[in-house]
Amino acid sequence: MKRSYDKLASLFKRKGYVWGPSPEIYEGGVSGFYDLGPLGTILWHNVANTIRMNYFEEGFYEITSPLIMPKKVWEASGHLGGFTDPLTKCAKCGAVYRVDKLILELFPNEKVEGLTYKEYDEKISKLKIKCLSCKGPLTNTVPQNMMLKTTVGLNTEAYLRPETATTTYLQFKRYYEFFRRKLPFGVFQLGKAFRNEISPRQGLIRTREFNQAEAQLFIFKKDKNKWDAWNKFKDFKLNLYPYKLQEKGKPKVMSLSEAIKNKCLQNKAYASCLGIAYKIMLDLGFDPKKLRFRQHFPNERAFYALDAWDLEWRSEFFGWIEVCGIHDRSDYDLKQHSKYSGQDLSVQANGKKEIPHILEIAFGVERLVYCLLEQSYDEEDKRTVLRLPPHMAPVKVMVLPLVTKDGLDKKAKEVEAFLLDEDFYAEYDDTGSIGRRYRRADEAGVPFCITIDHQTLEDDSVTLRDRDSMKQLRVDISELPEFLDMALAGELDF
Amino acid sequence: MKRSYDKLASLFKRKGYVWGPSPEIYEGGVSGFYDLGPLGTILWHNVANTIRMNYFEEGFYEITSPLIMPKKVWEASGHLGGFTDPLTKCAKCGAVYRVDKLILELFPNEKVEGLTYKEYDEKISKLKIKCLSCKGPLTNTVPQNMMLKTTVGLNTEAYLRPETATTTYLQFKRYYEFFRRKLPFGVFQLGKAFRNEISPRQGLIRTREFNQAEAQLFIFKKDKNKWDAWNKFKDFKLNLYPYKLQEKGKPKVMSLSEAIKNKCLQNKAYASCLGIAYKIMLDLGFDPKKLRFRQHFPNERAFYALDAWDLEWRSEFFGWIEVCGIHDRSDYDLKQHSKYSGQDLSVQANGKKEIPHILEIAFGVERLVYCLLEQSYDEEDKRTVLRLPPHMAPVKVMVLPLVTKDGLDKKAKEVEAFLLDEDFYAEYDDTGSIGRRYRRADEAGVPFCITIDHQTLEDDSVTLRDRDSMKQLRVDISELPEFLDMALAGELDF
Repeated sequence: MKRSYDKLASLFKRKGYVWGPSPEIYEGGVSGFYDLGPLGTILWHNVANTIRMNYFEEGFYEITSPLIMPKKVWEASGHLGGFTDPLTKCAKCGAVYRVDKLILELFPNEKVEGLTYKEYDEKISKLKIKCLSCKGPLTNTVPQNMMLKTTVGLNTEAYLRPETATTTYLQFKRYYEFFRRKLPFGVFQLGKAFRNEISPRQGLIRTREFNQAEAQLFIFKKDKNKWDAWNKFKDFKLNLYPYKLQEKGKPKVMSLSEAIKNKCLQNKAYASCLGIAYKIMLDLGFDPKKLRFRQHFPNERAFYALDAWDLEWRSEFFGWIEVCGIHDRSDYDLKQHSKYSGQDLSVQANGKKEIPHILEIAFGVERLVYCLLEQSYDEEDKRTVLRLPPHMAPVKVMVLPLVTKDGLDKKAKEVEAFLLDEDFYAEYDDTGSIGRRYRRADEAGVPFCITIDHQTLEDDSVTLRDRDSMKQLRVDISELPEFLDMALAGELDF
Repeated sequence: MKRSYDKLASLFKRKGYVWGPSPEIYEGGVSGFYDLGPLGTILWHNVANTIRMNYFEEGFYEITSPLIMPKKVWEASGHLGGFTDPLTKCAKCGAVYRVDKLILELFPNEKVEGLTYKEYDEKISKLKIKCLSCKGPLTNTVPQNMMLKTTVGLNTEAYLRPETATTTYLQFKRYYEFFRRKLPFGVFQLGKAFRNEISPRQGLIRTREFNQAEAQLFIFKKDKNKWDAWNKFKDFKLNLYPYKLQEKGKPKVMSLSEAIKNKCLQNKAYASCLGIAYKIMLDLGFDPKKLRFRQHFPNERAFYALDAWDLEWRSEFFGWIEVCGIHDRSDYDLKQHSKYSGQDLSVQANGKKEIPHILEIAFGVERLVYCLLEQSYDEEDKRTVLRLPPHMAPVKVMVLPLVTKDGLDKKAKEVEAFLLDEDFYAEYDDTGSIGRRYRRADEAGVPFCITIDHQTLEDDSVTLRDRDSMKQLRVDISELPEFLDMALAGELDF
C-alpha cells in the first residue's frame, strides 16, 4: 500500500480530526480554511497547552490582543509596505500562482530564496513554466500584499493581523509597569493570525487562518549574556544548521554552550530561546531525529534582524517544514512604533533612557498538529494506526463490552464513568465486533482499550490493551487509574 | 467614595486585567477593541474552561471553524440581509450613533424594542435629541450591516463571522457520521466573533471583537420531550421572567418542572438548556440573586425562533446585561443552508427523511469576565478589594517575606516554588511594607497571602491570610496544600 497525503487527509476527515477546505458544503470550500473536528480540537488544545505551560514555566505571562488593528500599526511594522508574496497570473484563464512555490513544485532543486522579481521572471521563462491548468502564458511577477483588509466603523481602514508579534509589542509600557519596571521580562500570545496566501494547496501546512504561539522577551542589549535560565539549557544538544554549512556541509549536533563558544550563536539569552523551542518539541512528543534548526542566510532575514533560525521538522510529503521561528529582532519594533505613534517607548537603564531588544519564539499551532498527526500515521498489513504519543492523544481509553448482553454493557458504562471521574478521557463503544472496535480505536489514535468480559463480572478484572504492541494485561478495575497513569507516561511494560 | 465604572476601569488597567481601547499608543485606540493583560488573560481562561467543562459534561463535543466565511454563507443565514443596527449621523459634524442606544442613554425609560425606523425618527424628533458632541441635527435612521467585510484571494467576497453558530451548523453531516448517525447530539464552539458596532461606548460590554461559547443541540422535533439529562435539571429553581409578566408583573422563581407544567417553557430539552446555562453561572461564582431569565417578546425574536430567553445579570453601572441567549431555532438554519448550498441536510428518522431542530446556548465570554470583575469590586474605608471567587482568581496565593533579610526572602522563594510544584499559582512579592503588599494583593484579587516571618525559620510555620476577612491562621508549610485546597473550595473557616 502506497502512503500518501491524500490517504492521511481522508483519515483526518473520517475520524473527526480535520475537515475542509471550509465551508465544505458550499462548493467545496475556500482554499486555505479548515475546520477541526471533535478529536482535532482536543489535540489542538493538547498542543496549545503544552506550549503555554512551557512558556509559563520560563516566566512568560500570557496576554491577549485584538485580531484587528488600524492601518497605522501596519505602516509602522512594515507589513503594509513589505509583507508581500510574488504573484503571477495566467494570461489566458486567470489562475494565480505564488511564483516561488510554483517553481519549487515543478523543479524542487531550484534555488528561489532571495531572488528579485526580475530573476523570477527569467527563471519562469528559462524553465518554460506555463499555467498548470490551461498551459497559458504567465504574466510578470508582481507583489501581492498578504494582509486581509477590512473597514471598522464607517471608514477606519484596518487589517487582520498577519502575526501576533506586532500586536504584542504595542503594550510594552503596560508590561513595564506590570513587571514593576524590571527588565528582562517576557510575555506571549496564543491566538489567530491571517495571511491571504496565493492559492494555498498544502492542507494544514499553508492556511490563510491559523494560530500562533509567540513569546517575546524584552531585554536590554547589554543583558543578553546574563540570563538566569541559561544553566537549564546550556547542555541541550541540538541539530544545528548554520547558514555557512548550508552551502557546503551538513547540520551538526552540538550543545548550546559549544554553539556559544564557537560563535555559531551570538548570546546566551538567544541560545536559551532555541533551547525552550526544542524542549517544547520534545514535550509534544516529536522524534528529535526529524528536527533541525536552520539559520537564515543574511539576505534571507529581515534587514533589522540580528539573527534568525527556523526550527524545522522533516515531513514525508512536504519536505522540511518550518514549525517555529526564533528571531533576534533588535530594538527595531519598539523604535518603529515609537516613531509612528509619537510615544516614547524607551525606559530607564542605568540612568539613561534605552529601548530594549526583543527576542522572539514563534510557533505555528496548526502546523504542529499536522506534523504530530503525520508522524503518528502508520499503515500495517491489517490495520491503520495513529501512533499519537499517549499524553497527546485526544481520547485516552476506549471502554468496550465484549458483547452487549449479560450486563457487560452496563458494567462497561460503570467503568467509563469511573475513569471519567478519575480524569481520564474515556469513551464507550459497543458497535460491531470486538476486533472491528479495536481497529476503529487504533485508527483514531486511542492509546488504550479496556475490554469488559464475563470474567469481569466474577472478579472485577478487565483487559487493558496497548494500541502500539496490541499486547494485553489483565488488571483489577480499582487499579486502572494507577496502570493508566503509568501507561500514559510510557512507563508500563505490556 | 463614589463607586463608578471609570474607577473600575482604572483598576483593570493598573492591575493588568484590561487595557484599551486598543491599540492604546495609537491615538487612544479604536473603540470596541481591548487587550487582556496577564491577569485578565488567566481570568478569561478560567471562565472559558468552566464553560467548556460544563458543555463536555453534558456530552457536547468541541469543534473549531474558521472565522472567515464566503458571502454565500451569510446570504443563507440571513446575516447579509438582516443583521443590521439602526444608524443616525450628525448632519453637522458627522458623528454616528446607534439610534436605540442613543435614545436609551438619554431617556432610560423609553421603550425602543421592536420599533420601525420611522418610529425611531419620530422619537428622535419628539424627544428633541441632537448630536451629543456638537448639538447638530440628526439624519434619518438607516440600516447599517454589522458584519466586517474582507476579500480572500484576489476577489472572493467574505465576512468575519458575527457569531460562531452559523459556522457550526455547516458541518452537520460530518457530525452525523462522527456520532454514528444517532441523534440527538451536541457540539459547541468557543471562539472569536466580530460585530461592527456603531460607536460602542460601554467598555467590555459592547465590543467589536469578542469570544462566544455557543453550544448547539441537534434533536428531532419529536424527541424534544425525551431528554436524558432532564432529571438532573428539573428541580433547578430559576428566576423566570416570561414576556407576559414583563408587561404587568415581576419575575417569578420556579422550578423547571413547574415551568414545563404551566407551559412557561415548551419542552424538557429546551428547559434543560436553561438549566445548563444556570449551572454554568453558579460554577463561575455568580450570585444567583442578581440573575434572571428574560423571555423575548414574540415580535422581538427572529421570525423562525420557537422560543428565546436571555440570561441576564444586573450590573450596577449598565443595568441588566445579557450574558447568554438560549434559543430554540427550529429547523430553520439547516433548511436555509440546504437550500443555498444545494446539499441535502436531512437525515433518516424512523424511515423518513427529516431535518432536525437546533437548540442553542450562547454565552459571551468577555461579558462574563467583566461581570465577574464588577461583582467582585469592593471599596472599603482603607482598601479596594477585588473579591473574585477564589477558584476563579488568576493568582491564588501571594508569598511575602516579612523583610528581605535574615534569609526570610530565600525561605519565601522556597515556599513559592513548593506551591507552584503543588499546582497552586503562587507569586512572590518583596517590594514595600507588608501592609502595602497586602493591599496590592487585595486589589489584584489574590484570595490568600502567605507571610514568612522569623518564627518560620524556627518551626517552618507561616501565616495564611484571607483576603476577604483579613483574618490569619498559623499553618505548617507542609500542610499548606491541604489548607489551600480547603480555602479555595470555600471550606476553610478563618
